[in-house]
Amino acid sequence: MSSSDIFIGETVGTAVLIVLGGGVVAAVTLKRSKALNAGWVAITLGWAFAVLTGAYISVGLSGAHLNPAVTLGLAIQGTTPWSDVPLYLGSELLGAMIGAVLVWLAYYGHFKDHLTDPEVLAQARTGQEGMVDEDSAPKAGPVLGIFSTGPEIRNSVQNLMTEIIGTFVLVLLILTLGLTEGLGLSGTGVLIVALTVGGIGLSLGGPTGYAINPARDLGPRIVHALLPLPNKGGSDWTYAWIPVVGPLIGGALAGGLYQLGFA
Amino acid sequence: MSSSDIFIGETVGTAVLIVLGGGVVAAVTLKRSKALNAGWVAITLGWAFAVLTGAYISVGLSGAHLNPAVTLGLAIQGTTPWSDVPLYLGSELLGAMIGAVLVWLAYYGHFKDHLTDPEVLAQARTGQEGMVDEDSAPKAGPVLGIFSTGPEIRNSVQNLMTEIIGTFVLVLLILTLGLTEGLGLSGTGVLIVALTVGGIGLSLGGPTGYAINPARDLGPRIVHALLPLPNKGGSDWTYAWIPVVGPLIGGALAGGLYQLGFA
Amino acid sequence: MSSSDIFIGETVGTAVLIVLGGGVVAAVTLKRSKALNAGWVAITLGWAFAVLTGAYISVGLSGAHLNPAVTLGLAIQGTTPWSDVPLYLGSELLGAMIGAVLVWLAYYGHFKDHLTDPEVLAQARTGQEGMVDEDSAPKAGPVLGIFSTGPEIRNSVQNLMTEIIGTFVLVLLILTLGLTEGLGLSGTGVLIVALTVGGIGLSLGGPTGYAINPARDLGPRIVHALLPLPNKGGSDWTYAWIPVVGPLIGGALAGGLYQLGFA
Amino acid sequence: MSSSDIFIGETVGTAVLIVLGGGVVAAVTLKRSKALNAGWVAITLGWAFAVLTGAYISVGLSGAHLNPAVTLGLAIQGTTPWSDVPLYLGSELLGAMIGAVLVWLAYYGHFKDHLTDPEVLAQARTGQEGMVDEDSAPKAGPVLGIFSTGPEIRNSVQNLMTEIIGTFVLVLLILTLGLTEGLGLSGTGVLIVALTVGGIGLSLGGPTGYAINPARDLGPRIVHALLPLPNKGGSDWTYAWIPVVGPLIGGALAGGLYQLGFA
Repeated sequence: MSSSDIFIGETVGTAVLIVLGGGVVAAVTLKRSKALNAGWVAITLGWAFAVLTGAYISVGLSGAHLNPAVTLGLAIQGTTPWSDVPLYLGSELLGAMIGAVLVWLAYYGHFKDHLTDPEVLAQARTGQEGMVDEDSAPKAGPVLGIFSTGPEIRNSVQNLMTEIIGTFVLVLLILTLGLTEGLGLSGTGVLIVALTVGGIGLSLGGPTGYAINPARDLGPRIVHALLPLPNKGGSDWTYAWIPVVGPLIGGALAGGLYQLGFA
Repeated sequence: MSSSDIFIGETVGTAVLIVLGGGVVAAVTLKRSKALNAGWVAITLGWAFAVLTGAYISVGLSGAHLNPAVTLGLAIQGTTPWSDVPLYLGSELLGAMIGAVLVWLAYYGHFKDHLTDPEVLAQARTGQEGMVDEDSAPKAGPVLGIFSTGPEIRNSVQNLMTEIIGTFVLVLLILTLGLTEGLGLSGTGVLIVALTVGGIGLSLGGPTGYAINPARDLGPRIVHALLPLPNKGGSDWTYAWIPVVGPLIGGALAGGLYQLGFA
Repeated sequence: MSSSDIFIGETVGTAVLIVLGGGVVAAVTLKRSKALNAGWVAITLGWAFAVLTGAYISVGLSGAHLNPAVTLGLAIQGTTPWSDVPLYLGSELLGAMIGAVLVWLAYYGHFKDHLTDPEVLAQARTGQEGMVDEDSAPKAGPVLGIFSTGPEIRNSVQNLMTEIIGTFVLVLLILTLGLTEGLGLSGTGVLIVALTVGGIGLSLGGPTGYAINPARDLGPRIVHALLPLPNKGGSDWTYAWIPVVGPLIGGALAGGLYQLGFA
Repeated sequence: MSSSDIFIGETVGTAVLIVLGGGVVAAVTLKRSKALNAGWVAITLGWAFAVLTGAYISVGLSGAHLNPAVTLGLAIQGTTPWSDVPLYLGSELLGAMIGAVLVWLAYYGHFKDHLTDPEVLAQARTGQEGMVDEDSAPKAGPVLGIFSTGPEIRNSVQNLMTEIIGTFVLVLLILTLGLTEGLGLSGTGVLIVALTVGGIGLSLGGPTGYAINPARDLGPRIVHALLPLPNKGGSDWTYAWIPVVGPLIGGALAGGLYQLGFA
């Protein structure tokens, strides 16, 4: 793969992942959206199909990592040269940021309405929407959840553990895609990865909202901090390291187990 | 492909797309339907499976465009000759109109009951069903949503932007189907396109109801204007250009990006 | 295909189709079921996966028709010899009856509890569960919906039309499966058929509950009439011809269109 | 297959199956989870995708049984040597126990909060959550459902029958996967099995919660008995034999029918 293929594939693919993934959270969260309160099945299927689309668009160019934890696992496996890793990570982060900007553009009027709605603002002051913190001070703004993940119970060790387990499952699956001839990261393989992400969301998303991807969380968080949204509140930077470090540990553990038992 | 194959494939395929796609909105909207209020997941899965069925039926004959924005993207890509484009567009529009008539026939008694129900009519007079307009005058009749899309927040620039982004994702995915050997627009490829449409609906359908296809919106709107439905109200022609122009821009942008970065 | 393969494939396959298809309606209908009121998405996905499982089990033996309307369409297409048709139809009906008995066995205790529940019986006397009839006399017992379909608005012409359109779409899809090399009625092909049935349910199931298969409706209706269920009420025989005749017309029309435009 | 491949494949695959399968029940059950009360579709899709992921990870090493009833059916079919059966069963049970521990770790804080919540405990004392027993004494603790299955109506014959029918369908499907060339237990085959498990859950899960797998039920039940969870209540050992014996009977019957009619 050429550097240009990696750059275009990962940037465009991750942007598509995030415009659809962040989009579904916007769709169920923002006032006046046709999908308001469509529920957890809508959110998890939305992210699953986001992976499907983003991965399929990029698989022919860059192999569709779209996720630094996947890049790390594939580097440990030996599939991706370590020298390509920085380009992958940078492209993934850039793509995630572009995707978050596109969510903002697609829901421009809805963001504005939601964030100037007195009810929404009152709710944000007395407690976070659907977020319970150990201490009472709100750490996250009322639409941060459209950009980045946050825990229901704020405890670094527990939150890290959840992210590690979820990412471990995802990356181990991706590493084994090479075992069955003719699938690889294309066609049926992409579909299986996408539904697995849906499954991880349904099953392990309850505590932290399943980042399982450092770029998916950090890129949009930076965009949230930069965007001129009225009353947007904080970007919860104290939590930001967990959805970066947890997935990287999970991806590395999956790479290690693969080398020990599957290779 | 012969002209006759293109005509039959696109007309029948788009008719199937619309009878199932319009059908699911009828199913969740019309009084006495077993699927009444089945929710956003039902609507988006219904449209996804509508694409799957219509595309699979037509893929062997015409390549299953079923959408002028897709035809435009494939023409820019060089896959579809420009000389075939008018036949594609005409067949797609005709098929969409036939599909809308079939929805009316399949839900004949339910349309009649719904549109003579005093509660439904009272609601339609005081405000649109699930539609909030900037100004108070209702622009769309109480069952127009079964035929065509409409915005929750009426703003031409914002609505165009949402349709452009959604269609861009769809067409870019379809253009990349050629990159992976053995998939093309058949089998797994059709399934991936269908689930992508489900994903675009879940994620980007909140503001405008995701036309992402000029024929899907314009054909049924014409049928809505012509059908002898009692108390059907207006066909919202002031909005009608947006779900035509927006998707065409999105498809053209996807064709352009493909030529620059993927070809 | 040998007669024995057709007999075993169609009988076992249709039994599996009905035990899962009837089962999902039992699951969302009967008191104390864990899936009580799980909704229309659950019902339509349940039937889709029922098709997937029944079709996959039988595809290697009999080609997985599982439906007289499909058999009729494939005979018109020339894929199935007319001399095999009677054996197909008989096996499909027998399989559907076995499947309905298995639903009864799997939900044995729940049927008993439900049908001796005073609330359920009171509701059944004042009107049908989820079924509105033009005239006030109840025509269907409180659990008939687990076995067979019934209309929300009782009108022979309208109900026939809905069943014709739904079955037409299903059979046309199945007939075109032969067009794309390497799919046929196996693997991805079976999956596409199954999701299409899910789509027809979501989109066209609102008025009549989408029989789209004479055996699926008639076999279980006979079993409902024979089973020793307490307070089971009538089997609605006045409606029984519609889900037989409608699907056969739809299947024949699909066969005809295929021969004209696709062959 | 080497013993080491069987051991690693079945242990890791079953652990993944259970961490996702048990996880989805935790997600919809435990207070403060983002997926609280997400419903039966979420649970059944969660288990379906759990099968997909666990099976795909292990299919290249051990053929992805992940279920003693499947192993039994494949041994009767002649696909799996009887001499490998003990290793399969032991690995499956071990994997299921590891998976249950991982659910506990992923939801560590949520278990603690849930089980010290006065409301939850009061409800557990007056009756089981979503579980109706013939006699009034609670037999199962308030979070046992995250680990193992339990009946809504407690009757050994009926509960056995339901488990037999559900497992019969599952194992018969898996045995026929060998009939269609090119699928086997990989790619599309794994997807079909996964969606079939979703279908069995939707359709036949109402009475007993569809164990359809002795390891899936027994392993986590043992872990439930051992874990230091506060106020966890009983592990319902009087029921524990049914989700072991029922699935084994169902798997054996499927193996027998396959040998008689399909081989």
